[in-house]
Amino acid sequence: MENNWDIVNVLRYARHDWLNKIQLIKGNLSLNRLERAQDIIDEIVMEAQQEAKLSNLQLPHFAALLLVTNWQNYYFRLEYEVLGDIHSVKMNDNELTEWTSSFFDFLNTCIEAFQENHLSISILPEENGVKFFFDFTGSIQKREELERFIKESNQEIMLKELTEEELSFELQWGNT
Amino acid sequence: MENNWDIVNVLRYARHDWLNKIQLIKGNLSLNRLERAQDIIDEIVMEAQQEAKLSNLQLPHFAALLLVTNWQNYYFRLEYEVLGDIHSVKMNDNELTEWTSSFFDFLNTCIEAFQENHLSISILPEENGVKFFFDFTGSIQKREELERFIKESNQEIMLKELTEEELSFELQWGNT
Repeated sequence: MENNWDIVNVLRYARHDWLNKIQLIKGNLSLNRLERAQDIIDEIVMEAQQEAKLSNLQLPHFAALLLVTNWQNYYFRLEYEVLGDIHSVKMNDNELTEWTSSFFDFLNTCIEAFQENHLSISILPEENGVKFFFDFTGSIQKREELERFIKESNQEIMLKELTEEELSFELQWGNT
Repeated sequence: MENNWDIVNVLRYARHDWLNKIQLIKGNLSLNRLERAQDIIDEIVMEAQQEAKLSNLQLPHFAALLLVTNWQNYYFRLEYEVLGDIHSVKMNDNELTEWTSSFFDFLNTCIEAFQENHLSISILPEENGVKFFFDFTGSIQKREELERFIKESNQEIMLKELTEEELSFELQWGNT
């Protein structure tokens, strides 16, 4: 999926997300739910820390892809986290981004629209590469096609689970 | 001034700004200053509305310039507001952006670093163009050079005030 990600547009989407968060705080404060408001703030800060970790991995295209994915009209919602203590990695950013982008596009054609579809990616940088844990929960309509896509990918993928409600696999990506 | 304004970088700066605001809310909540926290939220929402109005003017380069100005290392802090009810304008975005950018750069060489330097721009779209009200307060060191820059600009500028602490002028920019 493509979009015009100029400065004005990127900031427009980001502003929209942040304002939603601010409204959530505001709503809870106006109901005098101080504790809930504080919990929301803590969640926001943690989410921002994950964004910062992702942005610091030295994978600008991959990070950009993940940062804008929820602003595209995919039928799933993306979450991600960066695990471990290694802060920057050396790998082919373009290839990784291309593969991930094509996976998002293909996944989108295999799932049912307007369902609770969630994709979570955990990123574990290691000495000699990065392990990615992909976990999708939602409504999968084209299981066989999805299996074929994953098996035919020229990548080191270990499929762990594929049902009508779940897809889970590990992807190992080596350093350049 | 130039910078690498890719998606990751733009969002990095925006995240930093938003987190500062969130921390301000958090700080006030932890001191049980509920009312102050709510006021801050209202200010944040109003500021975001100005950003949105600026972004909708159909001047993508000019809007982008203003949106990133405070992320550059200028010696002044920029504020802006969009007045009136006209929501989009038709003018030469590139020329306007170029002039404004060169003014920012030149102003920066004429003021004292690390002082309370503030530049405020009010933008008033009208039927046949846009009126810009520039107001600077702070410490101006090179008054004559600044006056010359403004008088020699090929633009419709009405200088209203120029002292050691203040510069104020109106700029009229016609539609294309």
